[in-house]
Amino acid sequence: MTDFAATRAMFDIPEGMTYLNGNSLGPMPKASPEAMMSFLNEEWRSELIKGWNTKGWFMQPNTLGDRIGKLIGAEAGTTVVSDTLSIKVFQAVGAGLSLVPERKVILSDTGNFPTDLYMVQGLVKLKQDGYTLRTVEPESVMDAITDDVAVVTLTEVDYRTGRKHDMKAIIEKAHSVGAVVVWDLAHSAGAFPVDVSGTDVDFAVGCTYKFLNAGPGGPAFIYVAPRLIDVVEPVLSGWYGHEAPFAFDTDYRPMPGKIDRMRIGTPSIASFALLSAALDVWEGVDLADVRARAEELMTLFINEVSARCPGVTLAGPANMDERGSHVSFHFEHGYACMQALIDRKVIGDFRAPDMMRFGITPLFVGKSDIMKAVDTLEDILRTEAYKEDRFNVRSAVT
Amino acid sequence: MTDFAATRAMFDIPEGMTYLNGNSLGPMPKASPEAMMSFLNEEWRSELIKGWNTKGWFMQPNTLGDRIGKLIGAEAGTTVVSDTLSIKVFQAVGAGLSLVPERKVILSDTGNFPTDLYMVQGLVKLKQDGYTLRTVEPESVMDAITDDVAVVTLTEVDYRTGRKHDMKAIIEKAHSVGAVVVWDLAHSAGAFPVDVSGTDVDFAVGCTYKFLNAGPGGPAFIYVAPRLIDVVEPVLSGWYGHEAPFAFDTDYRPMPGKIDRMRIGTPSIASFALLSAALDVWEGVDLADVRARAEELMTLFINEVSARCPGVTLAGPANMDERGSHVSFHFEHGYACMQALIDRKVIGDFRAPDMMRFGITPLFVGKSDIMKAVDTLEDILRTEAYKEDRFNVRSAVT
Repeated sequence: MTDFAATRAMFDIPEGMTYLNGNSLGPMPKASPEAMMSFLNEEWRSELIKGWNTKGWFMQPNTLGDRIGKLIGAEAGTTVVSDTLSIKVFQAVGAGLSLVPERKVILSDTGNFPTDLYMVQGLVKLKQDGYTLRTVEPESVMDAITDDVAVVTLTEVDYRTGRKHDMKAIIEKAHSVGAVVVWDLAHSAGAFPVDVSGTDVDFAVGCTYKFLNAGPGGPAFIYVAPRLIDVVEPVLSGWYGHEAPFAFDTDYRPMPGKIDRMRIGTPSIASFALLSAALDVWEGVDLADVRARAEELMTLFINEVSARCPGVTLAGPANMDERGSHVSFHFEHGYACMQALIDRKVIGDFRAPDMMRFGITPLFVGKSDIMKAVDTLEDILRTEAYKEDRFNVRSAVT
Repeated sequence: MTDFAATRAMFDIPEGMTYLNGNSLGPMPKASPEAMMSFLNEEWRSELIKGWNTKGWFMQPNTLGDRIGKLIGAEAGTTVVSDTLSIKVFQAVGAGLSLVPERKVILSDTGNFPTDLYMVQGLVKLKQDGYTLRTVEPESVMDAITDDVAVVTLTEVDYRTGRKHDMKAIIEKAHSVGAVVVWDLAHSAGAFPVDVSGTDVDFAVGCTYKFLNAGPGGPAFIYVAPRLIDVVEPVLSGWYGHEAPFAFDTDYRPMPGKIDRMRIGTPSIASFALLSAALDVWEGVDLADVRARAEELMTLFINEVSARCPGVTLAGPANMDERGSHVSFHFEHGYACMQALIDRKVIGDFRAPDMMRFGITPLFVGKSDIMKAVDTLEDILRTEAYKEDRFNVRSAVT
């Protein structure tokens, strides 16, 4: 049984803050500064160029990838870390297209995170020759998986409402018509059990700065099914994916039979130091426990808000089986109300047009946090504190 | 006049080490750990999600880009930082192709760093439709710039020999036939004065972990000429390049008129903290002084080796006008000899087939370092220490 008091004690959350935004940017593990100092002083400073060998920097995309792999049900040797999630989406969709060369349709939905759609739009523009992105509503995805579709690319959990796709059903449908699927696990990895092997996932990508707590802009990851690794095009074919990077050949040859081919350029080793410390928190954590606890906390949150916060209504499905690990509520004055909550140290965020969004992350969020959030929200509503001018100024970045 | 004693004092180089590998991985500035601790404790830990606004994270690709821009002769608002150099090469070449849509030839040379060639090979494969990469010898580049070439992509300084292209002449020739040029400044930025404005550069890309000292895998940068910014395709079109990233539209619209469109995904803010500290070292440094000092040191090195180290011969041009800021020597037992040098704390590196490579970086390298390196090399040659078995074992990553 996962000890959530112990995991909470591993995070350095500011005194008095109720942090319900771990679905956007996870808080800092207490071990992060020391891990970083160790990297700076014992690795970069002391080893300098030798660190690529002596400190294992060169293979960290793989060693850290394997640690993330364990959290998403991936076999060792199928996941690597580096770059940004946008880049990894481009790479995975491009690689997917290369597997189905006779088809030119990429299917996605309006619940996908926008950058996933943007990257595919750029890919389509680059490829020209009739390639298209077809975007449907999330509830229409199953019907839209037809035999002209090459690649289906979806984010499993809607970043706004928390609505979760039926991964298994979508993969089965896609495979039955000869399409491959790219899953964005940004709101899945570290949020609940994912089983990329068991559900026969083709490609999965994700980030590490949300539920995995690797810090702002932490590196992304990519998973490729073992059955595809030896045939897949890397698309973004950098020297880190070469069969012999240090032979400095002029021709690219993808690393045969290994996930290494999905590596691209020289990755930030400092960002890996933070990721490594963040993954240490997951040792001894059972994601089934995390999910059970998250469902309990989300149910409590939804019920309390429903009972005590008039005008605030749940966004997305009430059924927990169809929800990821955040809860959003529609409210007419959602933006200002969220600013008022933040002012009182209850941290969530806002998503247009009217949603207050709260991440439920049991590693460091408990019942008292939920009750604090609801108490605060109830008071803001009762006093109409959201009407204060200062809460109605939009910041440049929200 | 730049105070090189002062800049040397800003680096934390291990006692007794002669570090002549700053062209591969720069040493750690003494200010780096404190800058990183400040980021971790005062920014990530304390501000959490608010840091994107309150600590300026969201605009750091631009603010840091402008600081690098100053070192390469770029106007403010023309350079952004993020991703890896491999990614930036792909983006710049892809963007270049979009400017000359009627042509399908990309020209490069065998002196380009391999990952630049690999990324272009991946791009060509993705685009199909007759696109090709044409690769010639470095000395044949000028003649190969013909009116069927869309994009010329070159690394200014050869990573092996230090041979430097005539940037101005190549750009003039390319522009005269209607081609655009992408320059990789990996071995130029921070090594000597570069004038992207004055030489009418179209695109430039580079890394920050070599002469700029931002640590292993520090972020890359991209420069786009102001005259192109509003028309250029971002190619890798992520949400950071969108006109309104936080509107979460489903369609990509590149940021109009601003370099921001070349931003892609969420960048590593930790890597930015290190870059920022590393750029502080450059305040008050005149790159003309750096170049004059580097020429003096390289000349000394070459002359001393020529006089005292039989069998060791200069690679690349003797004329300083045709050389970047590293010196390589051919030697039959180059690999083992470099291992013997490293064993005696003189740090350079080896490049196949037989080159010992030494970076000349005046911010922290002086005459005594050069003399130490030559004295050590002379002794290793005299005693044939390179024949020891332990120096003849190849490591996985060299």
